[in-house]
Amino acid sequence: MKNIAVLLAGCGVFDGSEIHESVLTLLSLTKAGARFQCFAPDIPQLHVVNHLSGEVAKDEHRNVLVEAARIARGDIKATTELNVADFDALIIPGGFGAAKNLCNFALVGADCDVAPEVRDFIAEFALSKKPVGFICIAPVMIPKLYGKGAIGTIGHDKGTSEAFCIMGGDHRDASVHEIVVDEANKIVSTPAYMLAGNIAEAHSGIEKLVNKVLAMA
Amino acid sequence: MKNIAVLLAGCGVFDGSEIHESVLTLLSLTKAGARFQCFAPDIPQLHVVNHLSGEVAKDEHRNVLVEAARIARGDIKATTELNVADFDALIIPGGFGAAKNLCNFALVGADCDVAPEVRDFIAEFALSKKPVGFICIAPVMIPKLYGKGAIGTIGHDKGTSEAFCIMGGDHRDASVHEIVVDEANKIVSTPAYMLAGNIAEAHSGIEKLVNKVLAMA
Repeated sequence: MKNIAVLLAGCGVFDGSEIHESVLTLLSLTKAGARFQCFAPDIPQLHVVNHLSGEVAKDEHRNVLVEAARIARGDIKATTELNVADFDALIIPGGFGAAKNLCNFALVGADCDVAPEVRDFIAEFALSKKPVGFICIAPVMIPKLYGKGAIGTIGHDKGTSEAFCIMGGDHRDASVHEIVVDEANKIVSTPAYMLAGNIAEAHSGIEKLVNKVLAMA
Repeated sequence: MKNIAVLLAGCGVFDGSEIHESVLTLLSLTKAGARFQCFAPDIPQLHVVNHLSGEVAKDEHRNVLVEAARIARGDIKATTELNVADFDALIIPGGFGAAKNLCNFALVGADCDVAPEVRDFIAEFALSKKPVGFICIAPVMIPKLYGKGAIGTIGHDKGTSEAFCIMGGDHRDASVHEIVVDEANKIVSTPAYMLAGNIAEAHSGIEKLVNKVLAMA
């Protein structure tokens, strides 16, 4: 039975992991007969967004790992607890948390850096040639992690795909139902809620991504 | 296209709506060709549970509607905004929030009361003979809402099923893959994470519940 790490970034589309994408990832993994273990960095969230009003809750402070534990029903580990030998692959759902907590793309675009804990965590998979799936906005980390020429998609948003290329990546436009595969680097990506009009559309691409990651593992 | 209300109770299994159950409900509705609108009561959560440690975060205070908005990606209304004529049915996912925020079953068992906003909201569906689906622990509200003889399941947990009967309900044991239907009252229930060993098992019963609710609507 394949064992897949899932890297979360909090809990909620505007300041953490996109909840639907995260749950659909876990569902697709389980239906495909794989096991999973959720991880998140033990770092403060960039900020807390009130998801009803859409405004930043200035006096609130939350921790990425503690909030991500909600999606994982409490069964989650800090990124520093990884033993990569236990895992066959990694999948990273999207949501603004991927661009606010895992890296700072939402703030500085192509000048972004990946958080040190997150960089070290993903590098373990990349260096051991284990496949990594990036969903929604999470693929903006691909050029920073894999270097020039790494292939990925964030759908077809002009500003974001241009930033992907400025960072050295090779962006391929894709629809919500498609995945883009970098066979050399063992990377799979899909747009999900970068383009999805509803949860079933997000599910379509995520299920394909999960099945491709498992096939490459 | 049928339009289904989904009543949430926060965001997280230990103090709000069970996230997987909520997302699987939205997925099943969308795949079945229905629309949905999420609702939640605009009331304080009973408490905030740190989902990493499992402990109550004593100094934290969160609002049920604001946190439920995370699952709804911001598209949510307060229960007081309901116009029942716009909807064909209602579905209520589980999680401790259903037994801590929607009612106080987690605190007082069979002596529980349903929160006034929640009672009024669900009563609109019951009085207009529109079907209501209750998932996981949410069915403990059935006897209080529908009166003596109303039929439902919480799986086969002895203490909870006895409390269901003490409140006047007619409890039927069920497996995670089954639904229980009260045709007279138009109620459907399924155990989901009261019994589910994994997310695919929870999906199995929830999908059946959604399809039955839609068929009755």
